[in-house]
Amino acid sequence: MDPAPRLYELVLENGRSASPFVWRVRYALAHKGLAFESVPLGLTDIPTVLGGRFRTVPILEHGTTAMAESWDIVQYLDRAFPQRPLFSGPAELQMVRLVDTWLLLEVGRRLLPLYLLDVHDAARPEDREYFRRSREAYFGGTSLEALAAGRAAQLPAVRAALEPLRLQLAQAPFLGGTAPNFADYVVLGLFQWIGSVCTLPPLAGDDAVLRGWLERGFALYDGIGQDNRLRPLFE
Amino acid sequence: MDPAPRLYELVLENGRSASPFVWRVRYALAHKGLAFESVPLGLTDIPTVLGGRFRTVPILEHGTTAMAESWDIVQYLDRAFPQRPLFSGPAELQMVRLVDTWLLLEVGRRLLPLYLLDVHDAARPEDREYFRRSREAYFGGTSLEALAAGRAAQLPAVRAALEPLRLQLAQAPFLGGTAPNFADYVVLGLFQWIGSVCTLPPLAGDDAVLRGWLERGFALYDGIGQDNRLRPLFE
Repeated sequence: MDPAPRLYELVLENGRSASPFVWRVRYALAHKGLAFESVPLGLTDIPTVLGGRFRTVPILEHGTTAMAESWDIVQYLDRAFPQRPLFSGPAELQMVRLVDTWLLLEVGRRLLPLYLLDVHDAARPEDREYFRRSREAYFGGTSLEALAAGRAAQLPAVRAALEPLRLQLAQAPFLGGTAPNFADYVVLGLFQWIGSVCTLPPLAGDDAVLRGWLERGFALYDGIGQDNRLRPLFE
Repeated sequence: MDPAPRLYELVLENGRSASPFVWRVRYALAHKGLAFESVPLGLTDIPTVLGGRFRTVPILEHGTTAMAESWDIVQYLDRAFPQRPLFSGPAELQMVRLVDTWLLLEVGRRLLPLYLLDVHDAARPEDREYFRRSREAYFGGTSLEALAAGRAAQLPAVRAALEPLRLQLAQAPFLGGTAPNFADYVVLGLFQWIGSVCTLPPLAGDDAVLRGWLERGFALYDGIGQDNRLRPLFE
């Protein structure tokens, strides 16, 4: 029998996990009740493991298999460990992919630049130069400080973009209905990540629908990640 | 045995069907292979049927049951006619609801005001005054002509909002994967409706991904609605 899967994770200076894509895989492992071995990596450590095959985390290693895309990983988990499937079938999987794409384009793309400076400041000191250089290059040379400048004024657009979630969650406790599905884990992962670094709360204090859902989502699986979050998500 | 379901639809002056919500139900009936009796109504006819219980179409009547919300209708269809289910289970249903909410907020809300004048002009003459009065009141007294003025300049935002669909459809022939699911029908219904009234194509001529998917979606079920569309959807 293969050993437990090994999850290569990204860690900050304080040892806490920091990647929305790692977080969705941690939720998926917990959903399936799978024990795993965590391998903490700093950003600049990634090329030093598994022969430098991968450039991003999460990386899942299981027996002789290894992969580094969160969507590949969760589909692999459902094949290798059929118990408590993450997806009822291909149509649900495709729908969650569409939700994930929406989240990236409408929410992530607005949110990410506002918090990169916070990620930088929370990263291990030896990772910071690489992080700054690679992210500033991605944004055409704009400094992390300039991306974060006046960010409070941009939060209303982020909050407005989350409106489909509020309408959905006004009708059911989880995005998946009475129980969470992988769409919940995808969005919860984003907030687990933000909550580990943000020095400005992204959400409004009176956002009762999202607050209730985040509390339910963070309480799942014996309070997954409750030691991870350091920062308030609500004003 | 109950008779075939009866679908109350909205018709334009030329007898063609004109409601995105009716269209998704027409797709659902075709998906399940169900024959149905169509009852064409003009807008101002709705209060005259079924004792005036409903204010909107689609209305589905089946035996002694009648309902007028498209989501209620499709869930009823899966209960009353279990063959070829529309949803693999509650999680897929919730995911499609989330996609529907996204579509309404990010696409429908931008698109609708630009085309209300076209709907007005295509409506039965006896429906036009009511249509204009009710829609202009909804938009705070703005005239249909003012809502449509300069609309070409607003189409880029509509097209950008459709980007999650393009990314999804670059990976699979339908939103549901290899076969269409109700998310396809929800979005196809929007374009069946637009295509029956629009005097300005909403989509760019080089939008190959959406064009391919719309052609596949319009070809489903022996070319459902192929006699309905009068207008080009692509520039």
